[in-house]
Amino acid sequence: MNKLSIGVDLGGTNLRIAAVDEQGTLVEKVTLGTKVSLGRDHVIDDMCDAIQRVSEKYKDAAPLLGIGIGVPGIIDMQTGLLRESPNLPGWADYPVRAEIERRLKTIVVLENDANVAALGEKWLGAAKDYPDMAMLTLGTGVGGGLVMGGAIWQGANGMAGEFGHTTVEPDGHPCGCGNRGCLEQYASATAVVRMAREAIASNSASALARAAHSDAEFSAKSIYNLAIQGDADARRIFHYVGRCLGIVLSTLVNSLNLPIYVIGGGVSSAWESFSPAIFEELRRRSLVYAATAPADASAVLQGASAVVKAGPGPKTIITRALLGSDAGLYGAARLPMIANR
Amino acid sequence: MNKLSIGVDLGGTNLRIAAVDEQGTLVEKVTLGTKVSLGRDHVIDDMCDAIQRVSEKYKDAAPLLGIGIGVPGIIDMQTGLLRESPNLPGWADYPVRAEIERRLKTIVVLENDANVAALGEKWLGAAKDYPDMAMLTLGTGVGGGLVMGGAIWQGANGMAGEFGHTTVEPDGHPCGCGNRGCLEQYASATAVVRMAREAIASNSASALARAAHSDAEFSAKSIYNLAIQGDADARRIFHYVGRCLGIVLSTLVNSLNLPIYVIGGGVSSAWESFSPAIFEELRRRSLVYAATAPADASAVLQGASAVVKAGPGPKTIITRALLGSDAGLYGAARLPMIANR
Repeated sequence: MNKLSIGVDLGGTNLRIAAVDEQGTLVEKVTLGTKVSLGRDHVIDDMCDAIQRVSEKYKDAAPLLGIGIGVPGIIDMQTGLLRESPNLPGWADYPVRAEIERRLKTIVVLENDANVAALGEKWLGAAKDYPDMAMLTLGTGVGGGLVMGGAIWQGANGMAGEFGHTTVEPDGHPCGCGNRGCLEQYASATAVVRMAREAIASNSASALARAAHSDAEFSAKSIYNLAIQGDADARRIFHYVGRCLGIVLSTLVNSLNLPIYVIGGGVSSAWESFSPAIFEELRRRSLVYAATAPADASAVLQGASAVVKAGPGPKTIITRALLGSDAGLYGAARLPMIANR
Repeated sequence: MNKLSIGVDLGGTNLRIAAVDEQGTLVEKVTLGTKVSLGRDHVIDDMCDAIQRVSEKYKDAAPLLGIGIGVPGIIDMQTGLLRESPNLPGWADYPVRAEIERRLKTIVVLENDANVAALGEKWLGAAKDYPDMAMLTLGTGVGGGLVMGGAIWQGANGMAGEFGHTTVEPDGHPCGCGNRGCLEQYASATAVVRMAREAIASNSASALARAAHSDAEFSAKSIYNLAIQGDADARRIFHYVGRCLGIVLSTLVNSLNLPIYVIGGGVSSAWESFSPAIFEELRRRSLVYAATAPADASAVLQGASAVVKAGPGPKTIITRALLGSDAGLYGAARLPMIANR
């Protein structure tokens, strides 16, 4: 049997654990709630118990390569400390890696959750045929991850890939990071709901208003449902999501000239309603995209005034993620496989 | 004696050639005019003659590793064709590399001029102690280059590093690339002059107006001279240059978390007048910068509302280039040294 590793997706709501073999086959998956309110030590107890049960079960069949954990927050890669994690209060500056290694006596690799999702899509998902890729995860916030030469590009401090905090509108909506006009303020689930409430407040936006009134969980998904039913206000919101994503993708394409960019996270379910605006912006704003767009995209390039003709060579692909919420689990399981090399 | 290589900086105005040894010592430098109007073949004749004279002179003393050429334009790295070069009309789709290799019978490496300047600053200049760096060259346009792991990051099509075409103002000034609001429209020498003329047209801007009237070569340099004399209109222009650079650098710092970003090119002489605005924007707009700013910069971080505390680990340096216009020559000479490894 192939060697196994265990991937952990430690979210603010769910704690998911999977055993995955070197070929990428998911052997077992366990989902628990993350009992954040019971405190850090309780969550770590739960996590270690579950990991131990899974690893016991397979210990005679396959050697364990180690454990990879995707964590929402900023990790100090040298020390394995969690530096900041708004969704895991009380975890800051706690030596997560050392503690779990001590308890489970195996290699533990911590990584930011958005980076881990990117690694998952690179290993087994939309970017599996490409050595280099970037991923944007549109969830409660907007996360990002960059994979170069098959490995996560962590940057000098392990903080690379914060594409969600790219400035789209220099004087735009304030962001929790201290900036104004970050992508996260226009392309996250939170932003979609905020923009809908703004539309309701500023004009009739009657279908949105009715939905907000009748739907206790008025969410990005409710607004998407209105968009696919043709509601103009809802459609306008997703068009703006696409416009802002297109501006940031144009910058990434011009700066990095990667072969593929993957859009994942919950909001990516609304791909049909926001992606046309992405391609519209890319064609106008990225000379590199104009020169490298796939044939089906370049057919609509006539409107672009870009100076660089489309040429031969690799094409620039912008596409949806394939692994859904499992991207982070697969990516986490991949971490010790790469670390062991 | 150390092995030599020959670096060529093929600009629209000047053609410069240097012999450089493996330690980075400049052994000989030749400057010719680029006689663009006499046609491509004439320029290539001039270049090959000059290279041959230099290489003949040292051929008994040191083996020649090859020739590196920095070219303004987009190069197809596979074929060595120049795909687009606005400053070298008539060169598009010409097999520059093959033709020079045929004439001189040695290895020839072509590279985009902004990438070559970045490689020069990485090898011997401001970024020489860092494996990874990005450079912005503020000249007639705004060029960019990215060095990762000591080598130029070319991207899938050799088109990476186009930081000058990052969107700063989504509905801003039209750019020759087809986009609106590109950095190049606010931070190049051309942009500085345009913004001065706009200021003259829209208000009194009396000192600028007098300079524009009396100075036949009313240039970015004339405007900088007014700025250092304290003229408010001229100072406002460079403040805006810094603001736009700061927005783009915030995106780069958040996305790549590199240890150092270098600003070069003619306009970088005005560093004193635009750099304060760069740091102002970085502190506000980049959570990664807030967490990694050097001590002297973090002393003024109090105003920042960034959520991430400054921590230990490598610092993010934003600094001026050191090699001036020789960066491209050194970088070009470096190309065959790396290619031979």
